[in-house]
Amino acid sequence: MKTRFKIAQFGLGPIGLETVKLAAAKPWVQVVGGIDIDPAKVGQDLADLTGNKALRECRVYGSLKELLAVVRPDIVFHTAVSRFKLAFDQIEPMAREGINVISSCEELVFPHLREPALATKLDRLCRKTGARIVGTGVNPGFVMDLLPLCLTGVNRSVHGVHIRRVVNASTRREPLQRKIGSGLPPKEFRRLMTANKAGHAGLKESLALLAHGLGWKVKNIVENGDAVVAERDIRTQYLEVKRGQTCGLHQRAEASIGEIQLSLDLQMYLGAGDPLDAVRIDGDPPLDLVIKGGVAGDSATVAMLVNTAPRLSQAPPGLLLMTDLPLPRLA
Amino acid sequence: MKTRFKIAQFGLGPIGLETVKLAAAKPWVQVVGGIDIDPAKVGQDLADLTGNKALRECRVYGSLKELLAVVRPDIVFHTAVSRFKLAFDQIEPMAREGINVISSCEELVFPHLREPALATKLDRLCRKTGARIVGTGVNPGFVMDLLPLCLTGVNRSVHGVHIRRVVNASTRREPLQRKIGSGLPPKEFRRLMTANKAGHAGLKESLALLAHGLGWKVKNIVENGDAVVAERDIRTQYLEVKRGQTCGLHQRAEASIGEIQLSLDLQMYLGAGDPLDAVRIDGDPPLDLVIKGGVAGDSATVAMLVNTAPRLSQAPPGLLLMTDLPLPRLA
Repeated sequence: MKTRFKIAQFGLGPIGLETVKLAAAKPWVQVVGGIDIDPAKVGQDLADLTGNKALRECRVYGSLKELLAVVRPDIVFHTAVSRFKLAFDQIEPMAREGINVISSCEELVFPHLREPALATKLDRLCRKTGARIVGTGVNPGFVMDLLPLCLTGVNRSVHGVHIRRVVNASTRREPLQRKIGSGLPPKEFRRLMTANKAGHAGLKESLALLAHGLGWKVKNIVENGDAVVAERDIRTQYLEVKRGQTCGLHQRAEASIGEIQLSLDLQMYLGAGDPLDAVRIDGDPPLDLVIKGGVAGDSATVAMLVNTAPRLSQAPPGLLLMTDLPLPRLA
Repeated sequence: MKTRFKIAQFGLGPIGLETVKLAAAKPWVQVVGGIDIDPAKVGQDLADLTGNKALRECRVYGSLKELLAVVRPDIVFHTAVSRFKLAFDQIEPMAREGINVISSCEELVFPHLREPALATKLDRLCRKTGARIVGTGVNPGFVMDLLPLCLTGVNRSVHGVHIRRVVNASTRREPLQRKIGSGLPPKEFRRLMTANKAGHAGLKESLALLAHGLGWKVKNIVENGDAVVAERDIRTQYLEVKRGQTCGLHQRAEASIGEIQLSLDLQMYLGAGDPLDAVRIDGDPPLDLVIKGGVAGDSATVAMLVNTAPRLSQAPPGLLLMTDLPLPRLA
């Protein structure tokens, strides 16, 4: 690869910092700066925040505008929010400048699902300015959508796709341990999930991307979730959960298209004993895949963001889906 | 999909017949004819050969020229030979006409490995005429190259890829049962393998595609093979093997690029007890994938050929690799 991409990082939480660290290690990347709304971070440099001395000259700016006054990135890694509606206001100015964006925003994995009008608007803007935008990650973005889709490449026919992911949240970052309701009364967590104020974002998007990739029109995705209740006191690196409190979630999304059944089942809780990713395809031939231990979420999300950059840069402009790009791979 | 592709089938052995049957079932396909060099097949129609009455009007011609006198296909499925050198003379006239070709020719999965001059010549021709050519299948073409590549999409780093495929050849088509040496004295089969006159074709190509997809230059791929010797008399639907005779093969390809280790291990023999496909990626994160029972070879090869058609048709012209196309999926 001869091109060296100028990269900026929008959002400097744990995922954002790991992303910029990984990117900095690639010979085809030149990190040019960071953007964050946290006043405590603005004005610092990425060397201080990441511990990578090579990033000494890379300042953190409070906005895209401030960054652009100094340098124009080719690509922005966007790791800030789960909702496309919120991401839109952050990403739209980048698209306006023709800058490519690779985002961990869960709803951006299939933005047409919840916000078709916003998605169309952003797509049109990208086509005008030459920007490319894609949402990616590991879940959504890989284990429950891209990986099963790739498997169906060897299917003559498919009448069911059933995916199960079990994550031991004790091994994950602090925000995730909190996001799954750890320590809340189960009743309270269930209420928040029902109100769509808690839970794992992106399960419906995975299902929608899967169906879209197979050319199937899904009319109704049913999603439901429950709290996993701690059977004993649990202590992690970041927090404590008492017996009887919430220690995680069990969430499912299902849809049927005629005779075809799709189901995605996610268990993510502290101390989960047998983590794995499992994909079962009912079809000709039938396929039964297991990834023992599962794909480690945080590492993999960061990898997927960075690995997507070279392939995105060669794609036609637009608000894209991961299925529009060539096969994922280490870059 | 609005376009209906005109499809012709070159090579009417078991894989070719299954391919044209599957293609005929797709709403986006119009089968227009077959080509075979076997005089017993020429002049028949595909309905007789496949048992699918809808193919009554689709004649078998003795050459591309005879087919072209009647109808021009958009895509030819080519299932005839394993060696690119032999495939070249069959495919070159199609490329000259700007016709797209999807081939099961094992060496076409990475044609630059053994025949770089021919590959360059064919690529140039395609770019001139607008034709697209790609080699695909399940092995090579999926389990030992595309699937592991896709997995590395979630890797921050990789220092080893180790793939193991165990196939119970008793469940496979007759030509494959013979190709693995069934019934030969082990000494004779070993001699044939060493002379490159027997054995599984495409193992080196899988390794080369894998390395290429990761941007690694492989200088030396070491391949070796051995006979698997029957421990008891074996009878399949097609043949008999006595105790002490060859009942299959065990073949390995390996390469290292600096500290990085790649190994592909294939066992394919009659009565293999625990068929599977296993991919182990040593990296960050480590990945340990198993497909229980393995991907059923013949069904999957046929599926891969047909499923590749819509994506190939949207690719830029050239002699392409599967890594140049969007993510594989059911079409």
